[in-house]
Amino acid sequence: MQLGLIGLGRMGGNMRDRIRAAGHEVVGFDHNPDISDAASLAELVDKLAAPRVIWTMVPAGKITEDTVDQLAELLSPGDIVIDGGNSKFTDDAPRAARLGAKGIHYLDVGVSGGVWGKTNGYALMVGGDAAQVEHCKPIFEALKPAGEFGFAHAGTHGAGHYAKMIHNGIEYGMMQAYGEGYEILLASELVDNVPAVIKSWREGSVVKSWLLDLLDRALDEDPTLANLKGYVEDTGEGRWTVDEAVRLAVPAHVLAASIFTRFESRQDDSPAMKAVAALRQQFGGHAVKR
Amino acid sequence: MQLGLIGLGRMGGNMRDRIRAAGHEVVGFDHNPDISDAASLAELVDKLAAPRVIWTMVPAGKITEDTVDQLAELLSPGDIVIDGGNSKFTDDAPRAARLGAKGIHYLDVGVSGGVWGKTNGYALMVGGDAAQVEHCKPIFEALKPAGEFGFAHAGTHGAGHYAKMIHNGIEYGMMQAYGEGYEILLASELVDNVPAVIKSWREGSVVKSWLLDLLDRALDEDPTLANLKGYVEDTGEGRWTVDEAVRLAVPAHVLAASIFTRFESRQDDSPAMKAVAALRQQFGGHAVKR
Amino acid sequence: MQLGLIGLGRMGGNMRDRIRAAGHEVVGFDHNPDISDAASLAELVDKLAAPRVIWTMVPAGKITEDTVDQLAELLSPGDIVIDGGNSKFTDDAPRAARLGAKGIHYLDVGVSGGVWGKTNGYALMVGGDAAQVEHCKPIFEALKPAGEFGFAHAGTHGAGHYAKMIHNGIEYGMMQAYGEGYEILLASELVDNVPAVIKSWREGSVVKSWLLDLLDRALDEDPTLANLKGYVEDTGEGRWTVDEAVRLAVPAHVLAASIFTRFESRQDDSPAMKAVAALRQQFGGHAVKR
Amino acid sequence: MQLGLIGLGRMGGNMRDRIRAAGHEVVGFDHNPDISDAASLAELVDKLAAPRVIWTMVPAGKITEDTVDQLAELLSPGDIVIDGGNSKFTDDAPRAARLGAKGIHYLDVGVSGGVWGKTNGYALMVGGDAAQVEHCKPIFEALKPAGEFGFAHAGTHGAGHYAKMIHNGIEYGMMQAYGEGYEILLASELVDNVPAVIKSWREGSVVKSWLLDLLDRALDEDPTLANLKGYVEDTGEGRWTVDEAVRLAVPAHVLAASIFTRFESRQDDSPAMKAVAALRQQFGGHAVKR
Repeated sequence: MQLGLIGLGRMGGNMRDRIRAAGHEVVGFDHNPDISDAASLAELVDKLAAPRVIWTMVPAGKITEDTVDQLAELLSPGDIVIDGGNSKFTDDAPRAARLGAKGIHYLDVGVSGGVWGKTNGYALMVGGDAAQVEHCKPIFEALKPAGEFGFAHAGTHGAGHYAKMIHNGIEYGMMQAYGEGYEILLASELVDNVPAVIKSWREGSVVKSWLLDLLDRALDEDPTLANLKGYVEDTGEGRWTVDEAVRLAVPAHVLAASIFTRFESRQDDSPAMKAVAALRQQFGGHAVKR
Repeated sequence: MQLGLIGLGRMGGNMRDRIRAAGHEVVGFDHNPDISDAASLAELVDKLAAPRVIWTMVPAGKITEDTVDQLAELLSPGDIVIDGGNSKFTDDAPRAARLGAKGIHYLDVGVSGGVWGKTNGYALMVGGDAAQVEHCKPIFEALKPAGEFGFAHAGTHGAGHYAKMIHNGIEYGMMQAYGEGYEILLASELVDNVPAVIKSWREGSVVKSWLLDLLDRALDEDPTLANLKGYVEDTGEGRWTVDEAVRLAVPAHVLAASIFTRFESRQDDSPAMKAVAALRQQFGGHAVKR
Repeated sequence: MQLGLIGLGRMGGNMRDRIRAAGHEVVGFDHNPDISDAASLAELVDKLAAPRVIWTMVPAGKITEDTVDQLAELLSPGDIVIDGGNSKFTDDAPRAARLGAKGIHYLDVGVSGGVWGKTNGYALMVGGDAAQVEHCKPIFEALKPAGEFGFAHAGTHGAGHYAKMIHNGIEYGMMQAYGEGYEILLASELVDNVPAVIKSWREGSVVKSWLLDLLDRALDEDPTLANLKGYVEDTGEGRWTVDEAVRLAVPAHVLAASIFTRFESRQDDSPAMKAVAALRQQFGGHAVKR
Repeated sequence: MQLGLIGLGRMGGNMRDRIRAAGHEVVGFDHNPDISDAASLAELVDKLAAPRVIWTMVPAGKITEDTVDQLAELLSPGDIVIDGGNSKFTDDAPRAARLGAKGIHYLDVGVSGGVWGKTNGYALMVGGDAAQVEHCKPIFEALKPAGEFGFAHAGTHGAGHYAKMIHNGIEYGMMQAYGEGYEILLASELVDNVPAVIKSWREGSVVKSWLLDLLDRALDEDPTLANLKGYVEDTGEGRWTVDEAVRLAVPAHVLAASIFTRFESRQDDSPAMKAVAALRQQFGGHAVKR
């Protein structure tokens, strides 16, 4: 089938390649004319036959919002807009309503897979109505990994981004679990070959995972991670996951701790710990660092 | 080669099968005569040609300690004792010393794989001297999964059990991360097919893992886990991991939280939260449950 | 001076008493005519001389919002509205703007003290402009404890509720710290008089506090807290505190854990721990509870 | 009454002053001859009339252990040794047994109060037998604050140090709660006078405490804590508290998090977060810091 794809960066570019490789027609649009298949959104729309399916893969927030609103002006009743970016799930229902007022359909898709998706396929979680999910199945089939896994119709508008958000929250927790275990191994007086231990877990163990494979890969390249700083950014999904846990009264000790350690990793000094140091000095006369 | 194997329960029995399937001779001993290949430890030792290799796979603690001490009486200089049970790493150096005083060698092996190991192979982490590790390689090769992964000589005496302990600590953290994410998904108003979301992550996603495969398998059998209580035991390794983090001054928020939630899962009522409820009642006149 | 006070419940009623005891005139309004000094908001406004100061002490959310909007219709330029309820800080700037459009001033006040405030005085944290803070000083002086503490002009509109929110977040953390320590003491094989230990900390110790006094008081009434369940509600402030920590990238392990344990205290069963139990059963054949 | 006091440092020296001020005779011993009342332990013992009471206030661990063992040689049946240092509770029962074999009694005392104890009195938690607790009451009365609080006979040998250990664990949690709240206040866009907010909580609020008074005092001296680094040491008690929580299966999220944040405060870089950064780079091509 035919797909319009907006945003041909690291993710979108790879996705275009993978969808085309599956035999579909992709008309891509990007602000970089060197990689764009159309000179403007209007031209992109013109190049597609109705009912059109247009997938946005641009930065979440204002850029996605603006793109969707521009599409609302350009598209026709019966067309479908899919947002595969990292939008917050709360943006989806209002968007679906705005588009729906013009007869345009909307799907939100959480996309996992990172730079490996082009080769391995992307895990897709979709929110929206069944009819549109069915209509777009060929594209989803092209993007997802071969086999029975890697795709879910998660629920109504927002459910796709919601499922992806939780996916990322879990991802933070898993990474932190590996990180903490790795650090204790390094500190141990007994274990003298930590990379070998990591490698031993890749098959046969309970903790085997793709993330573990990647940790082993990183240690192959740099056995002590000497070329890295323990400085870790976070994107919105991890924060939203904690907000949702709080809103829904779900205990989420591990997911919250995983985001807090990232915050810590980026602090030069901690005001909280300055206060604690001040208190120890006050009551115990304990030495402090200045 | 030839191996003596003590303890033919769920783990040991499967291991005997797997080692034999690889073409080695295993003389097993168990207190259950129906499955034992020898009537006594002494007979087991007699049936093996020196230098003997004897692997204990019995409950950690006193039973393992007693078994090793009995072997110390029965074996000859040059023989090798391997403990593959869940012994605490601090037991290994004293054991190696006691055996070493009689010229008997010792290896500690952390074994992961659970009930799946017989088919998939077991991940093995070994502590001890290189010469004995080399000598026992054929047995390790038989037990581990095919391919380059699933085996490490982690370090000196105790390093095998240490690596397995950390493995289990990480396992707790990963399971808790999945559990928390699963619970938020269930609570969400948007996602109406949680098992499908879990299934979608099995390929192409960043959180794919064997544990996730098993969660999906559990949900296939019981889509709402209605037949289970949220009651989770813990074995020593998770606790020792936290103790080690504390001893070595390694921040381990996630691993500690994961064991604490297990403690909580087993409490009928929480004295800590009774104290908190009492405080709220005292200062705010807030209602309490009686 | 003269004050209108809306809401004469547990908090508002006590506050009226305390302000009157300081020699000020309070015209109170409540939907309960038995305790109200005015039959309606309009009558309340009529009874006050301009420039009026009216303090709302009603449930946060829609009730407070509606009350403020009604006041906006009834009051005159130069009057001052003070909200002393538990409003979320994000409500304050919009409210100040709505009132300000009519020339009415606004202050937000976080009020701490609970049922003890009538006697001991209330700690007050105020947000808004200095001129209005100054104008209302006599009322603040009447409500606050004697001496130099118990009052702060924290910042602009919203800062009063913000400071109170953080106060409550800290309160959760302190209560949880006491609760956990109390539970370990109870579990100890050595300590046989836990209430005596709590009592010993009330003077001379580093952990002495008013909350500790109250814990001792509760244990005097019920030495084993046998008449309480470990079931703890939470109000919005604790949750908002965590949301703010997440928004501002402040690590808040303790404050977040304190709210999560409250969530846990109210769960009959934990979906997260069901998932963990399911995983253990899947990989290890571990027994589960049904 | 008469007391021998070993160790006249920051704590012991102040305690000697306070006990003397209460009218008791204190013979102090210290390795520093300028402040010592006796040239040797033997001379100290000689200067006291039987039954002697000797209080050790020296660094926990080997120094305390050695001092107690020397006293065991010098003292007579019926004498009493009191350890008021920060010994681990597990040292007490063996010590009591060693001394008891010679007819010498033993008490362990947890002492809280820091540099303020000389003036305010010290909170005392005592472990041992009632007869010796009774015998030493005059000394305890001299050390404790005036009034009904500040003293407990907590239980058998070890209970005094145990109660002090938990006291310190709680102290860590409270300090961390204040620290986190303080940091969020600092980060807030609304609150522009954080020290004033802290000060407002000192009376009338639910979070008032002696620690809060000290935080206010520290902010009076240095309003932004600019002269401090957020680097916080920890002594054994906080770690032992977590170990006990783990041993006794008591959930202790807050106490554990409070010690982990101290570990973090002392790390130049975090191996765990290096591993997390490496993983993000591997799967997502995310930028890293080098």
